[in-house]
Amino acid sequence: MRTTAAVALEAGKPLEVMDVTLEGPKAGEVLVEIKATGICHTDEFTLSGADPEGLFPAILGHEGAGIVQEVGPGVTSLKPGDHVIPLYTPECRECDYCLNPKTNLCQAIRSTQGQGLMPDGTSRFAMTNGTPIRHYMGCSTFSNHTVLPEIALAKVRSDAPFDKICYIGCGVTTGIGAVINTGKVEIGSTAIVFGLGGIGLNVIQGLRLAGADRIVGVDLNDTKVEMATRFGMTDFINPNEVDGPLAPYLVDFTGGGADYTFDATGNVEVMRTALECAHKGWGESIIIGVAPAGAEIATRPFQLVTGRVWRGTAFGGARGRTDVPQIVDWYMDGKIEIDPMITHTMPLSDINKGFDLMHEGKSIRSVVLY
Amino acid sequence: MRTTAAVALEAGKPLEVMDVTLEGPKAGEVLVEIKATGICHTDEFTLSGADPEGLFPAILGHEGAGIVQEVGPGVTSLKPGDHVIPLYTPECRECDYCLNPKTNLCQAIRSTQGQGLMPDGTSRFAMTNGTPIRHYMGCSTFSNHTVLPEIALAKVRSDAPFDKICYIGCGVTTGIGAVINTGKVEIGSTAIVFGLGGIGLNVIQGLRLAGADRIVGVDLNDTKVEMATRFGMTDFINPNEVDGPLAPYLVDFTGGGADYTFDATGNVEVMRTALECAHKGWGESIIIGVAPAGAEIATRPFQLVTGRVWRGTAFGGARGRTDVPQIVDWYMDGKIEIDPMITHTMPLSDINKGFDLMHEGKSIRSVVLY
Repeated sequence: MRTTAAVALEAGKPLEVMDVTLEGPKAGEVLVEIKATGICHTDEFTLSGADPEGLFPAILGHEGAGIVQEVGPGVTSLKPGDHVIPLYTPECRECDYCLNPKTNLCQAIRSTQGQGLMPDGTSRFAMTNGTPIRHYMGCSTFSNHTVLPEIALAKVRSDAPFDKICYIGCGVTTGIGAVINTGKVEIGSTAIVFGLGGIGLNVIQGLRLAGADRIVGVDLNDTKVEMATRFGMTDFINPNEVDGPLAPYLVDFTGGGADYTFDATGNVEVMRTALECAHKGWGESIIIGVAPAGAEIATRPFQLVTGRVWRGTAFGGARGRTDVPQIVDWYMDGKIEIDPMITHTMPLSDINKGFDLMHEGKSIRSVVLY
Repeated sequence: MRTTAAVALEAGKPLEVMDVTLEGPKAGEVLVEIKATGICHTDEFTLSGADPEGLFPAILGHEGAGIVQEVGPGVTSLKPGDHVIPLYTPECRECDYCLNPKTNLCQAIRSTQGQGLMPDGTSRFAMTNGTPIRHYMGCSTFSNHTVLPEIALAKVRSDAPFDKICYIGCGVTTGIGAVINTGKVEIGSTAIVFGLGGIGLNVIQGLRLAGADRIVGVDLNDTKVEMATRFGMTDFINPNEVDGPLAPYLVDFTGGGADYTFDATGNVEVMRTALECAHKGWGESIIIGVAPAGAEIATRPFQLVTGRVWRGTAFGGARGRTDVPQIVDWYMDGKIEIDPMITHTMPLSDINKGFDLMHEGKSIRSVVLY
């Protein structure tokens, strides 16, 4: 079939919206009509050329929602008409990782996904001239139609709006999951969140949902305060207004350090500060942000020997097929908010404007509506 | 009263055995006759002058066992004749730390202990000319008699031999506790232990006690193999015999990385290797060793984002008054071994020979018998 997609032809260039060909689903695969997709910093990271594993040409996008159109042989858990959210972290429920309750990093299709290919080692996408196009993060939601493995699709309720729940495919789940799955934050905790962009806001609302008492936001930009407060931030610190080193200041501000700290910046210096303002004895610091290639975190081992724990999280520790439908329910039940974070929408033809808004810091999340 | 002690008069000099004066116990304090004390690398660290917090003159030693001689006003849990092990990490059971199940770092007497003083801010020790001598780690077991706070003494069974259970006051508990309290290692786990000195051997027997299946030891010295094997090591790797980087080799050797890794070297490069050979998704790396002042650990944050956890441990995460008596029981019941690790004993007058044996790498543990 033919469909319309925004294709990343090469690093550092705008996407080009064009007709592409899409092969139907093979065994274990599913054809999905994407109805909405968010534009995430990870797409930008790859498009810019900074991602050492980036491959071109490719159809980017990994934060979508849509409707099953057709299923390949052997697919049992989905049928045409089902509403789904693509999962860049699949959940096969059979590999060593899925069977270990400590991780969500299903490895069933890891190697082919990393190469931008379906599990059989081929691509379903091509230019109309026949040149193959790579998939991206196993999702490629910047195409009106895409093919995914059955294990990389979460079936969700059909009354949830695509233009909002697409954000659960990455940002919402990453932020809330970091709190609930990775941190396992307890009622009454004190937390510090570094970076009040989309991920940070979702960390904040995850903390509110988990019953944290103090939710301290840290950002260089005072304009973030209003939105972060709406999502549950109780205190705000602008490091530019702090004299001296930030970590001791935050330890003092929180009465000994935070029970949990979250880096949502990707800056390795901030990651260090986040660890060092965690409470002696039990504070845990969780890295969410993606650092530049080659960047390293550092600290004195004494920080760990005196009881701090350093962790990271990917996709918020969520097992997508199990956890994503629940987060959709939380949204529909009003337990979490998404609408205020979707600051811009646009048709696929204007997708590059979404990247411009991101570069300019004007959007929290731009969503493409098909 | 007068007693005999090995006094550290200044950094970098041998200890001097001499008569000192010791005031009796004040409120909440206990006079203990020390019957045996181990000589630990931490004593050496301070004596050498490398410890930035070292104070002189001081009576070092923190790994002892003895008998209560006299109790001060208000002491209720101990009486003369009780057998005890001094605790450099006390357990008051009342502070925020003791009441938080995630930590063992009781802070009740932290600030005075750090200054080499009893909780009232004074020292019980002095030279015969009246010059005050500092306590050390709240213990000062290099004195035949010493005074400690009640909360810094674990009451243990009276049939356990002092010359062996003194080692439970630091090394045994640190190694076994790192496995049981900090790692919470599960039956069937794979583990890697870096450094096969006294702490490493105790980590190994902790792993055996916890039911680990594979216990890989890593050391530059092949002579460590026999003793480590006796304590439960199943595989040995000498990094000098590995071509290329060690971490990927160990990941491959353990079929994807270890569930738990332990640094018992204090070398920050080894700490990095220990983290990076922990299993993707769930591997935890635990720092036990004490690094040189100012040394830093580093890694790429990707190591944590893909599921590894970086922790540290102090006194093996043990709550001394609660856990130390249990470890003494384990020793008396034959669940753990101590005797082969006590390679040398000596009278207090020969204590400097114990330090020499440590420097020469000839001892696992030297114990002074009073």
